[in-house]
Amino acid sequence: MSERVIATYAIETSLPLERAAEILAGEQSTGTFVRVARETDDVRARFAAQVESLTEVARGDAAPLPGTVGDPAERRRAVLRLSFPLDNFGPSIPNMQAAVAGNLFEIKELAAVKLLDLDLPAAFGERYGGPRFGVSGTRELTGRPTGALIGTIVKPSIGLSPEELATVVDELVTAGVDFIKDDELQGNGPHSPLADRVAAVMPVLHRHADRTGRMPMYAFNITDDIDLLEANHDLVVAAGGTCVMACINMVGLAGLAHLARRATVPIHGHRAMFGAISRSDQLGFAFRAWQKLARLSGADHLHTNGIANKFYESDDQVLAAIADVRSPIVGIGETLPVLSSGQWAGLAHATRAAVGTDDLLVLAGGGIHGHPDGSAGGVASMRDAWDSAERGETVAQAMATSPALRRAVELFGAPRG
Amino acid sequence: MSERVIATYAIETSLPLERAAEILAGEQSTGTFVRVARETDDVRARFAAQVESLTEVARGDAAPLPGTVGDPAERRRAVLRLSFPLDNFGPSIPNMQAAVAGNLFEIKELAAVKLLDLDLPAAFGERYGGPRFGVSGTRELTGRPTGALIGTIVKPSIGLSPEELATVVDELVTAGVDFIKDDELQGNGPHSPLADRVAAVMPVLHRHADRTGRMPMYAFNITDDIDLLEANHDLVVAAGGTCVMACINMVGLAGLAHLARRATVPIHGHRAMFGAISRSDQLGFAFRAWQKLARLSGADHLHTNGIANKFYESDDQVLAAIADVRSPIVGIGETLPVLSSGQWAGLAHATRAAVGTDDLLVLAGGGIHGHPDGSAGGVASMRDAWDSAERGETVAQAMATSPALRRAVELFGAPRG
Repeated sequence: MSERVIATYAIETSLPLERAAEILAGEQSTGTFVRVARETDDVRARFAAQVESLTEVARGDAAPLPGTVGDPAERRRAVLRLSFPLDNFGPSIPNMQAAVAGNLFEIKELAAVKLLDLDLPAAFGERYGGPRFGVSGTRELTGRPTGALIGTIVKPSIGLSPEELATVVDELVTAGVDFIKDDELQGNGPHSPLADRVAAVMPVLHRHADRTGRMPMYAFNITDDIDLLEANHDLVVAAGGTCVMACINMVGLAGLAHLARRATVPIHGHRAMFGAISRSDQLGFAFRAWQKLARLSGADHLHTNGIANKFYESDDQVLAAIADVRSPIVGIGETLPVLSSGQWAGLAHATRAAVGTDDLLVLAGGGIHGHPDGSAGGVASMRDAWDSAERGETVAQAMATSPALRRAVELFGAPRG
Repeated sequence: MSERVIATYAIETSLPLERAAEILAGEQSTGTFVRVARETDDVRARFAAQVESLTEVARGDAAPLPGTVGDPAERRRAVLRLSFPLDNFGPSIPNMQAAVAGNLFEIKELAAVKLLDLDLPAAFGERYGGPRFGVSGTRELTGRPTGALIGTIVKPSIGLSPEELATVVDELVTAGVDFIKDDELQGNGPHSPLADRVAAVMPVLHRHADRTGRMPMYAFNITDDIDLLEANHDLVVAAGGTCVMACINMVGLAGLAHLARRATVPIHGHRAMFGAISRSDQLGFAFRAWQKLARLSGADHLHTNGIANKFYESDDQVLAAIADVRSPIVGIGETLPVLSSGQWAGLAHATRAAVGTDDLLVLAGGGIHGHPDGSAGGVASMRDAWDSAERGETVAQAMATSPALRRAVELFGAPRG
């Protein structure tokens, strides 16, 4: 097997760049701090990570990571592409990850080390399978063959009894929403256990489907211990539910893959905690690298954040993330990007123009629940705005024809466009 | 249920500290960016996260995290203790984690946000059980009732055939090592599959045990997809193996808990990738917080790094980590701290004096394999040095009586002490 995994890093170091690259390559393949018996040239040639390219780039003004050695004045930044023989670990995400993203973050010669991207052999796609439902499966289950899917998050995030939840869901589905999700903070606590939420919500969805012929998708948050994921999933499916949500970093990528092998409905992949591994420019994983592993592991939907969000990411980062999720990898199907955080109707035209597709799930929490006319007004404003954007209209045209959008603008301010 | 989880954070912000604390508390419990219907005062009182204390501390010179808003000149640092009702999530690590360490890392009002510590109700201990073997179980299985356990990592990390591995292991056990582990880079690749390694190594260990009455512990790295962990574990146990190793961040804390519920031998918990979530002072998890979750989830052994290591951590950080792992939590048993990275015999006296215990597993990779007289000399030097330190001798006394230590010093330099 001569295939290789290529990992691309941003590194900073006060050593000569080539020397730092060799230290990283050695630590993550054949090396230790002294050359040992049996570490022959043949072993090195066959199993060592190899420097494919090393390109100096401009350094920002961030301080070196704590514990870095070397003269700070000498520090330079580079993009390093390292390749690893697939034979070292096989197409196993956990074992590949130990090589490309394991101890290397602790190397003291590196003042910065961030995994930017991964190029993986097709064997990973064959082993993991990626999303089982993705864009087309979600459109089919929600009965929305075209247009952006409009969704929302139950608010308040926690604190509603199952009965109150049913009332909220009834309002939302009556207003015509395509998708509703539990907040990631709503797990399986004693106040509102998953089983009680399913029992309260599903009859509302069924009644709505009986009336309209379309069942909105509700993503029940089934995040929990691995041993409970399958039972939680089965509980949702037995009640007629069409989606389960998992916090990917809480069940782990390996937990997601475990769930995907059993799931008979789409998995809504939440990225809570992603900031901890990505917000620093000096350390961790770029979204581009991480999302490939999440999609491979089976995320049918994947959170990308949205423009003008309430979190730290710039619009450019968000748009790059949406493009990343839509870029084909290793022969697996399409994952649906999920736009959320601070989203409301006035962002539709700008978002649509920037992403160039309506294969999106757009979630507005406060932007729907907090609408001056309540959830019904919130959903109507979102639908009107996205339909208008899809028709190629301007924001002004949408404002002229949508009272719900005009009401939203009264509260949330000027729309983008 | 009135119990609460207390999460302690270091935060930096340009907002008034109290305001930033409220934003964090709101985002992680009842809030969204506008107040919504049904978010009553009663819901807030019952489910909201509460600020228990907020203490300003000196700020370092690290730059604000990317995407932070506010005037950098106004930036201040504080230690914030937030409490969350256990009722919000129940004693579920994944769901608790979504609250205490989820979206909050993305809050743009925070220029730094690092989870320093977690105080958990006893219900977590009851649900997860912690280590099943820990210190005493490991001592029993290795036949070392007292003294530091001396271990090593197979080197080269990867590239040995199963037959070559058997030869290396034979050398090491003949030299009297207590413990051997696969490198974290050695997973289950096609070059040296786990089954072949087990088949090659276990007869060597059995022959040694037949001769000496003691079987050294070999930690086979069984890290892989969740669906393979149990079979990998069973394969090791069926062959008479007494330990399995898991890269905790690769199988996830949830994967570790899944394995621990099934394991009939100790789990050697490797922390590869830990640097990605911890090396920045501005972001992620301090070891103190993370190790509690790893121990709860069932790590019998847990890597802490060692003094004078080849990675970024200072000796103070390492010693604090060893103390953390040994601090009792929520009624669970003791996890054995694993000292590794750049370890050799000359560090024994300084380490022993600083940690005040010999309930340690000390791993030397290059420090044993790279010894001038080979692995036998390496193991002898480690054993001599730790025995001497345990007797309360000085390094000079150890040097006077141990030829193996003197030979190690020739290569690795002056000992500490």
